Amino acid sequence: MDEVILGIDIGGTKILTGLVASDGRVIDRIKEKTDPDAAPEMSMNQIAASVHSLLNKNGLSIQELKGVAAGCPGPLDFSRGMIPQTPNLNWTGFEIRQALSDKLQCPVFLDNDANMAALGEYCYGEGKGCKHLLYMTISTGIGGGIILDGEVYRGTDGGAGEFGHMVVNPFGPNCRCGGTGCLEAVASGTALARDAQILIDEGKGQGIAKCCMNQPVTARAVGEAARQGDEDALDLIKRASMYLGMALSSLVNVFNPEKIVLGGGVAIGMQDLLLGSLRSYIKEHVFSLHQKKLGVEITSMGEEGVLLGCAAAVFNNRILLGKECERT
Amino acid sequence: MDEVILGIDIGGTKILTGLVASDGRVIDRIKEKTDPDAAPEMSMNQIAASVHSLLNKNGLSIQELKGVAAGCPGPLDFSRGMIPQTPNLNWTGFEIRQALSDKLQCPVFLDNDANMAALGEYCYGEGKGCKHLLYMTISTGIGGGIILDGEVYRGTDGGAGEFGHMVVNPFGPNCRCGGTGCLEAVASGTALARDAQILIDEGKGQGIAKCCMNQPVTARAVGEAARQGDEDALDLIKRASMYLGMALSSLVNVFNPEKIVLGGGVAIGMQDLLLGSLRSYIKEHVFSLHQKKLGVEITSMGEEGVLLGCAAAVFNNRILLGKECERT
Repeated sequence: MDEVILGIDIGGTKILTGLVASDGRVIDRIKEKTDPDAAPEMSMNQIAASVHSLLNKNGLSIQELKGVAAGCPGPLDFSRGMIPQTPNLNWTGFEIRQALSDKLQCPVFLDNDANMAALGEYCYGEGKGCKHLLYMTISTGIGGGIILDGEVYRGTDGGAGEFGHMVVNPFGPNCRCGGTGCLEAVASGTALARDAQILIDEGKGQGIAKCCMNQPVTARAVGEAARQGDEDALDLIKRASMYLGMALSSLVNVFNPEKIVLGGGVAIGMQDLLLGSLRSYIKEHVFSLHQKKLGVEITSMGEEGVLLGCAAAVFNNRILLGKECERT
Repeated sequence: MDEVILGIDIGGTKILTGLVASDGRVIDRIKEKTDPDAAPEMSMNQIAASVHSLLNKNGLSIQELKGVAAGCPGPLDFSRGMIPQTPNLNWTGFEIRQALSDKLQCPVFLDNDANMAALGEYCYGEGKGCKHLLYMTISTGIGGGIILDGEVYRGTDGGAGEFGHMVVNPFGPNCRCGGTGCLEAVASGTALARDAQILIDEGKGQGIAKCCMNQPVTARAVGEAARQGDEDALDLIKRASMYLGMALSSLVNVFNPEKIVLGGGVAIGMQDLLLGSLRSYIKEHVFSLHQKKLGVEITSMGEEGVLLGCAAAVFNNRILLGKECERT
């Protein structure tokens, strides 16, 4: 059997565990819903159960793996493997790397999910061959990963890449991070759903309400309504797209990257509605020098970006503490 | 005599040439006004005249220098030493590094002025001992320099660090870069003066008009009027400060830097009016993780930051092409 790693993508709404080969092939995977209000210890139990059933199903033991890596929501205090403050999970102060290692009884390389996905794009995806790459995930929340000169850039305490908390509207709504007017508060899936619900409560957005079929409003329903020509849905997406365009243009003028890769449920599910307008916005707002080699793409990894990043982290040992993943 | 370098700071409104020793001491300097509408060749003549009079005055020849370096407005196509598009000077497409080398008959190390100033702060100023540092100049325009792991980060084509062209107001005024709603278009010295002039034309801002003493409105006059309690001036500064706070908060959440240093005429001249509110805005808009080690300071180099950066570039040979500066 090929050399295989185990990757774990711990998200605000799901846990995805997968076995990945060194060529980036996802051999098998298990996806489970998470309870965002669960105590972190409960989630660790859920993850361990997922991991063991995936290994059993594939006739593997932890000892046969090349390594284990995981991505979790940021910001992450990288050196301590601890989440000091997270807007989308109830895990503030939790030492997740140690807890995962204890639970799985093996060393676990941990990074924030967006850094992992960025690394996945760099090694196996849209960013192959790039020097400087930015990855933005647009989903429940909005996160980011930064690859400069082929390495993950983490900043002073591992908190770099919080693209979702760029301030784009000075008079914008409160954000779960404690700030106001953050990109995440006006352009994430959560923000789209919230704003659609407000419209529906006001008696507008009937096309969106129809797409919800009596379920809670989702960003997906907004997208469906927009495709059916609902003006309110189109307006919501236009506004979110403007804010995303602002943040992306700022990032291009600041980083002069070769590639921006967009991932996450909203970016993937609404690429027909978002990508064209984002590219136009960026074109109108960045220097010609910065446009020369710039590509703005949707991930081709679907929801497996973090798993691929886990593979990149272990196989390529690109990350400072990557050696922790190596089984001796 | 100590080892000495010649530094040239080519700005939108001034040319500053200086002789700098390896310990960061500015031995002598000449400052001249520039004509922003002059053809670049004319400005090269002006620079050469400045350089020769500075050298003559100090009994030095170019051959006795350790090296010559210059900072110019960005974005700069670093590898070609060419300004592909600049909002604040009429130099689009001008191959400034080659022109300077020809004119002074020696190799010249060239970077954009904000990168140079960032390097100056890192080696001699507020950023000494930091790993990750951001420098923002608030002046005629707004620029930026990025030091990561002790090196200037330039991006794919040398265009990184254009903090003045972060988009902070989606409905904001046109910017000289061709975009709209850029930080520079709403919070630079030029923007402050423009907005004050609009108020005065509407019959408001009388306190500002008084401070202008029949001269064209300047950001400095807005500052003076604000110190005298003029409400319109205070409002203008409050608004500019909010936009600066947005951009700086975004940069902190994106880079997780150890230090932000603010330079340029507006930041230095209005630090009593700006620094406190910028620090508060950032505190309210960034993660606690990112605040832990963060310092936000005004440069202590006055207007000599670029000269010190030129010295750092030559003496420390920190920059890729720094060897070009070395005289053999």
